[in-house]
Amino acid sequence: MHKFEEKTIKTKPIFNGKVISLQVDDVLLPDGKEAKRELIKHPGAVCVIAITDEKKIIFVEQYRKALERPLVEVPAGKLEPGEEPAYCAERELEEETGYRPGKMTHLQSFYTSPGFADELVHVFLAEQLEKVEDGLVADEDEFVELLEVSLPEAEQLAKDNRIFDAKTLWAVQYIRLNGLA
Amino acid sequence: MHKFEEKTIKTKPIFNGKVISLQVDDVLLPDGKEAKRELIKHPGAVCVIAITDEKKIIFVEQYRKALERPLVEVPAGKLEPGEEPAYCAERELEEETGYRPGKMTHLQSFYTSPGFADELVHVFLAEQLEKVEDGLVADEDEFVELLEVSLPEAEQLAKDNRIFDAKTLWAVQYIRLNGLA
Repeated sequence: MHKFEEKTIKTKPIFNGKVISLQVDDVLLPDGKEAKRELIKHPGAVCVIAITDEKKIIFVEQYRKALERPLVEVPAGKLEPGEEPAYCAERELEEETGYRPGKMTHLQSFYTSPGFADELVHVFLAEQLEKVEDGLVADEDEFVELLEVSLPEAEQLAKDNRIFDAKTLWAVQYIRLNGLA
Repeated sequence: MHKFEEKTIKTKPIFNGKVISLQVDDVLLPDGKEAKRELIKHPGAVCVIAITDEKKIIFVEQYRKALERPLVEVPAGKLEPGEEPAYCAERELEEETGYRPGKMTHLQSFYTSPGFADELVHVFLAEQLEKVEDGLVADEDEFVELLEVSLPEAEQLAKDNRIFDAKTLWAVQYIRLNGLA
């Protein structure tokens, strides 16, 4: 048994969507009391730190409806059912940026919002990039713009809050700490 | 108008909970087509990088129902309606750890899951800590355990996937990059 485990008494499914689902669990707390937990289920995702031979970092800018604004982010995407994270990372990188990696390394995985969601993001490093596609073929309902910037430029994008999400800020720090660009 | 803006055609409220709410928006894409967006609204949160005079980092371990496992995290909590992030950070730090900071600095804010949620986390640095409370007085349905560790120990917790969420991994990198511990 896990420390402070909260045992599920009842699960009430609320919504089952294309991307996420929502349920409310009644749980038994360690002290015997009960509480409610609002929980989002997510298929998981990947993101890619892609560095060109010229030590430029590849980002994509896209509109995020949840925030009603565009964000500059590392290329990322949701896992398809049963899809290997490494395969998904290659697929999303090529779809969103037109680059195919010669070398792909898993760096880290992390939960993004452990208080209410089970989304797990797997971070990969893509190197030895080859441009295979000029026009971008993103998902049919995705509109993205490519940026290729130096590390100081990326750090400035973060200061300007154009880079403004946890996974991309983690990535910029990782690049700085490990001298990747 | 924002780049690639997605105009809302219709909002369908699905769920209005204690912590999160869920809606599905029909949106008009830049190419004139329509798409659906599943969106979580969250009140926002704070987290605190708390460093003792002995250069130990304070973490809390708690069970995360969304993940069905415990996680070691920087002290964190949700914003109350209208609450100032800096005030919330002080409150959560004291509630979860029994420490009161002499100095509090805002370091960074970030969105955690921009693909589907508007949760914004504000990160603070707490220094000149004074222990004001021995017993912890967390929220009535929260059970947390305190850890005070060195930076190398924190990095080992990350390797062992006991530290396993984006905000805490960002915090550990920040401490390393800025020589805080």
